Amino acid sequence: MTATPVWSVDPRTGKQREQVAVEATPGEVDEAVRAAHTARGALADAAVRAAFLRAAAALLDGGAHRVVAAADAETALGPGRLTGELARTTGQLRAFADAVDEGSYLDIRIDRADPSLTPPRPELRRYKVPLGVVAVYSASNFPLAFSVPGGDTASALAAGCPVVVKAHPDHPATSELCASLLREAAVSVGLPADVVRVVHGFDAGLELIRHPLVSAAGFTGSVRGGRALFDAAAARPVPIPFHGELGSLNPVVVTAAAAAERAEEIGTGLAASVTLGVGQFCVKPGLVLLPEGPDGDRVAQALTKALGETGPGVLLDHRMRENFIAGVRERSALPGVAAPVAPGDGGEHTVRAGYLTVPAARFLGGAQDEAYEVLLEECFGPVTVLARYADQDEAAAVLARLPGNLSATLQLSAAETGGAPGPAAELIGQVTALAGRIVVNGWPTGVAVSPAQHHGGPYPAATSHSTSVGGTAIERWLRPVAYQSVPDALLPAELRESNPLGLPRRVTGA
Amino acid sequence: MTATPVWSVDPRTGKQREQVAVEATPGEVDEAVRAAHTARGALADAAVRAAFLRAAAALLDGGAHRVVAAADAETALGPGRLTGELARTTGQLRAFADAVDEGSYLDIRIDRADPSLTPPRPELRRYKVPLGVVAVYSASNFPLAFSVPGGDTASALAAGCPVVVKAHPDHPATSELCASLLREAAVSVGLPADVVRVVHGFDAGLELIRHPLVSAAGFTGSVRGGRALFDAAAARPVPIPFHGELGSLNPVVVTAAAAAERAEEIGTGLAASVTLGVGQFCVKPGLVLLPEGPDGDRVAQALTKALGETGPGVLLDHRMRENFIAGVRERSALPGVAAPVAPGDGGEHTVRAGYLTVPAARFLGGAQDEAYEVLLEECFGPVTVLARYADQDEAAAVLARLPGNLSATLQLSAAETGGAPGPAAELIGQVTALAGRIVVNGWPTGVAVSPAQHHGGPYPAATSHSTSVGGTAIERWLRPVAYQSVPDALLPAELRESNPLGLPRRVTGA
Repeated sequence: MTATPVWSVDPRTGKQREQVAVEATPGEVDEAVRAAHTARGALADAAVRAAFLRAAAALLDGGAHRVVAAADAETALGPGRLTGELARTTGQLRAFADAVDEGSYLDIRIDRADPSLTPPRPELRRYKVPLGVVAVYSASNFPLAFSVPGGDTASALAAGCPVVVKAHPDHPATSELCASLLREAAVSVGLPADVVRVVHGFDAGLELIRHPLVSAAGFTGSVRGGRALFDAAAARPVPIPFHGELGSLNPVVVTAAAAAERAEEIGTGLAASVTLGVGQFCVKPGLVLLPEGPDGDRVAQALTKALGETGPGVLLDHRMRENFIAGVRERSALPGVAAPVAPGDGGEHTVRAGYLTVPAARFLGGAQDEAYEVLLEECFGPVTVLARYADQDEAAAVLARLPGNLSATLQLSAAETGGAPGPAAELIGQVTALAGRIVVNGWPTGVAVSPAQHHGGPYPAATSHSTSVGGTAIERWLRPVAYQSVPDALLPAELRESNPLGLPRRVTGA
Repeated sequence: MTATPVWSVDPRTGKQREQVAVEATPGEVDEAVRAAHTARGALADAAVRAAFLRAAAALLDGGAHRVVAAADAETALGPGRLTGELARTTGQLRAFADAVDEGSYLDIRIDRADPSLTPPRPELRRYKVPLGVVAVYSASNFPLAFSVPGGDTASALAAGCPVVVKAHPDHPATSELCASLLREAAVSVGLPADVVRVVHGFDAGLELIRHPLVSAAGFTGSVRGGRALFDAAAARPVPIPFHGELGSLNPVVVTAAAAAERAEEIGTGLAASVTLGVGQFCVKPGLVLLPEGPDGDRVAQALTKALGETGPGVLLDHRMRENFIAGVRERSALPGVAAPVAPGDGGEHTVRAGYLTVPAARFLGGAQDEAYEVLLEECFGPVTVLARYADQDEAAAVLARLPGNLSATLQLSAAETGGAPGPAAELIGQVTALAGRIVVNGWPTGVAVSPAQHHGGPYPAATSHSTSVGGTAIERWLRPVAYQSVPDALLPAELRESNPLGLPRRVTGA
């Protein structure tokens, strides 16, 4: 058996640039996991972990020119976007270092013994311990922030878990470069390099999720791929948590009053959000509920104008380009669907941004309208669908049919944002039921890395109720342990009475 | 098709007492779930939920005589134990009411907008919302505290989730009585009774986990039953969290120094823990690593003496009795296994407590000793296994082979608890890797209901990293939602700037 080569490909030409690696055999996956597992004890010291994350951020920033060039050559995302993404990535590494220093992620709770209770309460001291080796599945569309040095890796390392990253085939060279920097950072603070390992190959990804020493997984990608891995994680003799971010339509509701008030601003803002990163964001707005009538028409006209000024773009790989063109064609062919700006083939290696329109009533017809379900599925690339609604009830009825989403966005009028009677309050309740993040009068693209952020949502947006962005992402890689009547000398430092590490704790009892 | 009757059975005689209900058909399960789902909005008000939980506690306490009598007639657990279990149950309901009032379970985080950041940070306000209808699968061995009015129900209702309980066939009359009290409590505070529903029947349990409107499940029971339901939950078109507490061996390690110092106390304490509730606790110590030699012998002698003074007991049902007798027989038949106090058939309808011994080396032999694996599986009932070890390395090697556990217990000497050099510190690390709760110089039975409690552990102890007992059990039934740039007038009250509910929050930024 010869090794399967892994090539770095230029999506601007479809040409192979260089062979970066070979796909990992089952034996090689096993070796990577065992090496990471062996390294796990070295991550026990929180101060060293924080230093490691900061060293990694510094090395990535120091190598920014190389990293951005490598990523741009493989993804065509452009140096501007990638420079921003790198800053986001290193900011995220530093934010998790800060979280490790601060310590509230350990969720320490101490209940003092109380012999006066019936039954008497023993002393209980609880904190959280790392799960073990975490498998990270890189995203196509964020070669840095959701890949080797991304949020899953950063949060897992912060929690004390070594990681084995399954690199995305769209950016193997970037993956190898980032892995080498992370491993160099580990060594620079005295950690074994094997706290971070990378493997390539589809089959290697399946081997990884099934490996007995893998304790949890993080994933960002398609519904199909994510569900297959989720199923494999659940079917293990010992099931493991699978935190997957799969797919999202990210509905937008434009109220009649908002369209009347800000049609041009909404249409222009929508165009920018739909075309950002050539429409390759998981929070791209894929369905816009827009009122029928002249105000809604003005929103559409502004969208048409802005998209007309958008040049063709290069998608992450040629398979995505073909899927986009085919997906748009399938949707456009439905009766009643129009394409005022036709999205699709933009000429060799590129695609054109555009949008479709459909009467919202098409989603509400019953069995004969099942063909329209495809418009309620994510279409990866620079396209959105305007569903024109007759009244608020019709908009609400479409919302009630949607699967889970990462985000939902409301465009409201000034009076509505002030709480004036109208559909706004009801809409907030409706979209809370179907999304993980609610945006008012903004756009869902641009997910802030911030303590209160939540990037997740009801299935298929995510396979768990956790977040992959923000301060609480670290919670995914920890499990609680309670120590009952354990003498101080034998407690982990985090739980000792004198609190030598100065950690936040909730104490019950005297 | 005639309805399948559900009988209340007296385990002391094996005789049917009365027909309590019929098994729910798929249509009846659907009706129950839809009714609960319809009632969910009524649970939105936290103050009403807290009042409901307290009203339920008061009604259960007020009906204590009836409740205890009903449970004793079906379970033979005895009025003493059941009176204590009822107090635990109502205390738990009140503790979750307090948690609702206090509000930190909402994990509110507020990040203020910061336009000076790159990219500018929008305002983000995050809290947690209830998942929806929760399916609760009752345990056999706690007809109150882990059944209809138990911790899963209490924590789900506290979170704002209606519940549909699948009653355990060992106590259907108790289940119906408790459900009627909970429903009465709901109505007394103005809630619809359908925030709590009960269904009976094995097939109904499967229907329940597959119902599209069920959002999560809690389970306490066997590895086999729990895994089947876990698999069904994962295989749904929309997978849901399944928080199952399945099975646990609850290893105990007695160090050589502890045996030398406190042999009689350890043997006597072990006997009490093994026979509590006729050995029908999920945290019953099922494997005791005991040193070879005279000190270990003294522990065994004290165990023999204490068990000799224990009369026969009635298990929860006749199937369990048969399984216990068969399980003990299978284990006793292994070469090298002795039964100084033979557990098993105690005469009509009863079982005798006892213990087995085996050289620890039998677990370390390799392929030919696979037959001994059965000794590392939970045997429900009043039996434990003493594995006699030659030295610390042998004890550690056995620990390294164990699956996940709810608890692990160390019996240490006075010097070891003071941190004197010895195996204690190493043992703490080893058992932390394999259990959710670590007990020193106590016994694992008697799980305190307390904010810092953790009742869970690596699989198969639990199917998730959550707890089913203690303050954080409520976290299982919630998911985060972040509100980005949502005007104050449209925010849920919990997140408004003025903090009208006085909730704890973590704020980032100015």
